[in-house]
Amino acid sequence: MKGNVLVIHGGGPTPVINASLYGVLEEAKENGNIEKVYGALGGTQGVLNEDFVDLMKIPEEEKERLLFTPASVIGSSRFALEEEDYEKMPAIFRKYGIRFVLLNGGNGTMDTCGKISRVCGQDIKVVGIPKTIDNDIAVTDHTPGYGSAARYLAGTVKEVSEDVRSLPIHVCVIEAMGRNAGWLTAASVLARKDKGDAPHLIYLPERPFDEEEFLEDVREVYDRLGYAVVVASEGLKNKDGEPIVEPVFKTERAVYYGDVGSYLATLVIRRLGIKARSEKPGICGRASIPWQSETDRREAILAGREALRAALEGESGVMIGFKRVGTEDGGYETATFRVPIEEVMMYEKKLPETYINDRGNDITDEFAKWCRPLIGGELPQYICLKDYEKEEKR
Amino acid sequence: MKGNVLVIHGGGPTPVINASLYGVLEEAKENGNIEKVYGALGGTQGVLNEDFVDLMKIPEEEKERLLFTPASVIGSSRFALEEEDYEKMPAIFRKYGIRFVLLNGGNGTMDTCGKISRVCGQDIKVVGIPKTIDNDIAVTDHTPGYGSAARYLAGTVKEVSEDVRSLPIHVCVIEAMGRNAGWLTAASVLARKDKGDAPHLIYLPERPFDEEEFLEDVREVYDRLGYAVVVASEGLKNKDGEPIVEPVFKTERAVYYGDVGSYLATLVIRRLGIKARSEKPGICGRASIPWQSETDRREAILAGREALRAALEGESGVMIGFKRVGTEDGGYETATFRVPIEEVMMYEKKLPETYINDRGNDITDEFAKWCRPLIGGELPQYICLKDYEKEEKR
Repeated sequence: MKGNVLVIHGGGPTPVINASLYGVLEEAKENGNIEKVYGALGGTQGVLNEDFVDLMKIPEEEKERLLFTPASVIGSSRFALEEEDYEKMPAIFRKYGIRFVLLNGGNGTMDTCGKISRVCGQDIKVVGIPKTIDNDIAVTDHTPGYGSAARYLAGTVKEVSEDVRSLPIHVCVIEAMGRNAGWLTAASVLARKDKGDAPHLIYLPERPFDEEEFLEDVREVYDRLGYAVVVASEGLKNKDGEPIVEPVFKTERAVYYGDVGSYLATLVIRRLGIKARSEKPGICGRASIPWQSETDRREAILAGREALRAALEGESGVMIGFKRVGTEDGGYETATFRVPIEEVMMYEKKLPETYINDRGNDITDEFAKWCRPLIGGELPQYICLKDYEKEEKR
Repeated sequence: MKGNVLVIHGGGPTPVINASLYGVLEEAKENGNIEKVYGALGGTQGVLNEDFVDLMKIPEEEKERLLFTPASVIGSSRFALEEEDYEKMPAIFRKYGIRFVLLNGGNGTMDTCGKISRVCGQDIKVVGIPKTIDNDIAVTDHTPGYGSAARYLAGTVKEVSEDVRSLPIHVCVIEAMGRNAGWLTAASVLARKDKGDAPHLIYLPERPFDEEEFLEDVREVYDRLGYAVVVASEGLKNKDGEPIVEPVFKTERAVYYGDVGSYLATLVIRRLGIKARSEKPGICGRASIPWQSETDRREAILAGREALRAALEGESGVMIGFKRVGTEDGGYETATFRVPIEEVMMYEKKLPETYINDRGNDITDEFAKWCRPLIGGELPQYICLKDYEKEEKR
């Protein structure tokens, strides 16, 4: 099949969203039937405004930098589209000779992808490239973007924990992104080398948060070690399903809540009288190139390639998914497959119960085993003084 | 001179405090007259408790990892010492054959260093190794630890800015460490490649913060670009010198304040009705090894070496300082010198007025020129779509 390609990005960026774009460009170059690979500037709004760039014009020697450029080089959007917006699209695609439309995003973007595929005729193929740091897309084992954000969080929690341990005067609460699903928060468990290492407590949005239990937990760790490192999801909710933090502002369209990390640190200070502080890396985590996971980058490139390949083979209304395929030595290996888009549209995949401990303040080994290969190699190991180095008292 | 060495760390860690320790070990090994290099576990309290480790026992092949291990491997403390604590120290030093005491820390630790040097007789030499991410030690041009924290902040602000620009729906306030001095906050200006790049607004503790002016500034940038990136010091104060955030808790010894970044983001939402969020990397910045500055690491090693060398030459009550020495091609080169400890004890060096613009919302080129060599090489450059790549509308 001949025709031009259009790539549209939706939602928040990841450290490897541009790597998927790179994969599309590589696949298009090798295919030979593609003249242009357009990028829609600023997501779906860029389609409606016909703001397109021709990414084939990026010089070959520059292209590699896509792999190490954070955010989305073609921009992104979060606009909710109206029925009439969708109906305008096929004509725009045809005007620019676009026969292959690839949408890169999370479950909201996959919803858009499904809707665009429905309004397009047989001549235009629409395929989804999965992307989210939240890892909450259904069916696929995991999603490009998650491994890098997980590596960032685990690596950063490990660094911060070393700091807090070396000046052990306080409780440190690190707030993790992921408002409804705890996948990213849970990845902080990989900061641990040995049992008992920081982070000592991990709280997820999947479990109702009980402030009294939290204070008991913190008190116990602090009394034992003289410090405590806590990782808390930004989306913690109480037993009634309400966010544990007060809304700071409400508009007709949205409610803005306070910071969970800061709230919990203040709670520790006020109720336990223990010095506490919070860190909220937030966007720093989803934009971090130094902590990019090699595995994640490789799979993001592959997702881009496979999406274009599926479209070229005539598939439409599907998303590229990843599944694990066993290797003889038990190592990590994945294969891609094509997921009917209906199965992922707007569905939010939560962390399974078996990944959370009974008390809801820690993560199981089963999760760690699942997550470890995704972060692309061991975290840096630090020097640790040994007992034999201690001097006998005189 | 023969004898053992003792290294004591004070205050918050930096990404290169262990590099200075490495420098001490290398110098001791080369000197040949040193049998043991002790580390006091947990700062000055480790001295009083006689909790020492012999760092010469670290295997040679492990030692390199000191350079890339965050936090303080021998721990640190912030205890205020009493007169009687100081008086106990010389006897402890003599018991362990310690003739060279090196204190690594900021201006508080240099105060301790000066006081210890006064209680020790001629037979024990006490020298300071400068260290702080705040860069607020007097006399020295800059301080080990600052360059790495500056690189972290500039690099992270650049990454976050790319993210915010690519999904331009909000104002992002990044809170920077440094409660009384704006050196670190100011370093965020290095995230800019071209004039007008993010960060668009930078607010420092050296200037009284005016909320109305801030809102005007944010409104102007947002109206022009559709987003805004702001960097704000955690220590912003109003015209009366009071922190702009309310205290969340007071004890007899300390007052805990809310987060400046979160406060300002909420102000933007409430007063301007613009979506806003805040990031507070906090300790993540002073513990980050991937953003360590090579220049900073090299100078931290040198500071450790020079401190021991000074002590071995019989100096006491001095701190190692850095000054810039001109090179023929105008390049960056430094030399160390010895600063009488009285000149740096407890003194807090603020950002000079010439480094801040008139309105107090930006940093001058003069500062950028001063700061740039310290962060150890250019920040990563990202791919940026060019105008010629834009497709003509049909």
